[in-house]
Amino acid sequence: MEFLTLGTGSATPHLTRHPSASILQIDNTLILIDCGEGTQYRLLENKVKTRRIKYIVISHLHGDHYYGLVALISSLSMSKRTDPLYIFGPNGLKEVITIQLKFADSKINFPLFIQILDPKKQALFVNEDRFTISSFPLKHRIDCTGFLFEEKTNKRKVKADLLPNDFSIENIKLLVAGEDVFDVDTQKHYLNKDYTFLADTPKRVAYCSDTIFDPEIVPYVKEVDFLYHEATFTSELENRAQITFHSTASQAASIAKSAKVKHLLIGHFSARYETLDGFLEEAQAIFPNTSLAIQGKSVII
Amino acid sequence: MEFLTLGTGSATPHLTRHPSASILQIDNTLILIDCGEGTQYRLLENKVKTRRIKYIVISHLHGDHYYGLVALISSLSMSKRTDPLYIFGPNGLKEVITIQLKFADSKINFPLFIQILDPKKQALFVNEDRFTISSFPLKHRIDCTGFLFEEKTNKRKVKADLLPNDFSIENIKLLVAGEDVFDVDTQKHYLNKDYTFLADTPKRVAYCSDTIFDPEIVPYVKEVDFLYHEATFTSELENRAQITFHSTASQAASIAKSAKVKHLLIGHFSARYETLDGFLEEAQAIFPNTSLAIQGKSVII
Repeated sequence: MEFLTLGTGSATPHLTRHPSASILQIDNTLILIDCGEGTQYRLLENKVKTRRIKYIVISHLHGDHYYGLVALISSLSMSKRTDPLYIFGPNGLKEVITIQLKFADSKINFPLFIQILDPKKQALFVNEDRFTISSFPLKHRIDCTGFLFEEKTNKRKVKADLLPNDFSIENIKLLVAGEDVFDVDTQKHYLNKDYTFLADTPKRVAYCSDTIFDPEIVPYVKEVDFLYHEATFTSELENRAQITFHSTASQAASIAKSAKVKHLLIGHFSARYETLDGFLEEAQAIFPNTSLAIQGKSVII
Repeated sequence: MEFLTLGTGSATPHLTRHPSASILQIDNTLILIDCGEGTQYRLLENKVKTRRIKYIVISHLHGDHYYGLVALISSLSMSKRTDPLYIFGPNGLKEVITIQLKFADSKINFPLFIQILDPKKQALFVNEDRFTISSFPLKHRIDCTGFLFEEKTNKRKVKADLLPNDFSIENIKLLVAGEDVFDVDTQKHYLNKDYTFLADTPKRVAYCSDTIFDPEIVPYVKEVDFLYHEATFTSELENRAQITFHSTASQAASIAKSAKVKHLLIGHFSARYETLDGFLEEAQAIFPNTSLAIQGKSVII
């Protein structure tokens, strides 16, 4: 998996820190997580192959998390996309998309599915061969969900250097599927245990967009390989974080520590901060393996 | 008057040519004309004092002309604006704004007035002491209006170098209002004709956002000092312009020539063009006083 940050800002606009948007790549599938204003320009800048975006998940309907969505849908349609697009998000999402397409008299040239998530409970809503996506409740000023992305099983890979050059694709597929292979041409047996190995263990990624400090989310993100957690403020504004239903960098780190995650990425920085060193320092004091989200930077998971 | 270009692109996103938005300054009042995605970032980049934006006029509800509007309204509210904001645009504008504010549970902290314009007829909808704004019909795929901004009368200015340093503000106001002044302290008469002069003649600006080539707009923009007219294509794509209800650079120039305007600015360039020299060449062949819209560049009118 690979997590690409497209925006690190929060509600108040900031010239260089764009609003929330991230791309999670699982195998060849791209998932867009939140879609703040201008996300389509961030996708262009980062040369993201938008044709490969199959899922868009929207955490909540504050503008800095979705105001770029209808523009992106329209542009995907103009780009002659034909593959279906699946969008998941809170109540109201369908109405805000539909009304804007209606008044623009826009026809979308690909199948567009919009499914509403229940913000009150955990739910698995994408079940692919290779991964699942679930939502879980976050506490924010309006209905808001976190997301959990889980690879399903270990993947077998072939030991290509041990196989003959003309070994057929069909036989490789059998090996990857865990079968032994008998090659009729060469009359040779290829035992699965000799010619394949287990790839990395399945990875788990959690995303907590906007949330007050809430230890109740710990069970949902328990021991994930990679946790994105918002950190709008540093600790001196803990009161303000509380009032606005946001978190500080220390609080994000506390969640990461309690949940025993492997890596914490923090973002959604308030526009009032000119530099971000304070965020990293206070988070790393609690959870050393913390990084700052940086626009255009990918993390391999 | 001063016209600042914030975006020169059209519907398909382009990394450096942003979607439509312009600022017209008349005296100390700013009018935002169209508000494509990311306009609030263009305003930040160009250090526009958003507090001074009193009017926003939206030509039509294609996304590249208004997808930045709700984000801007929300940001103005967060910036502690208290002055009223007046927005004018086509049917549907109120619904798309209202539904997005509703689902975000956003309260706007200043009086917000949204008035719908009739796309079928010419109408004066702002009548200030110093200027008026009118709309007129454009022919596009959906309802669309052009805008005409007209200064009202000549303004008297004082010859400050002839007046004593301690000449009172009250007396200056009398002179500007066209009165003669008798100064009781010095027992001196200041005749209006000696101490004031007429400022520039009142100016007229017209804005035609998205339109098929349509000579019927000529009467509306007759002899304006400054005409912005879209030029999405160059002439080799005249057929495509016709089909999509857009104009070529030549066609924009023909309108400017027929209307005997003083200066033509063209913009809304299709993303397919890497350079814009062709636009300028073909427009200037018909109407020499043509300029290309350039982001961040102002024209004094």
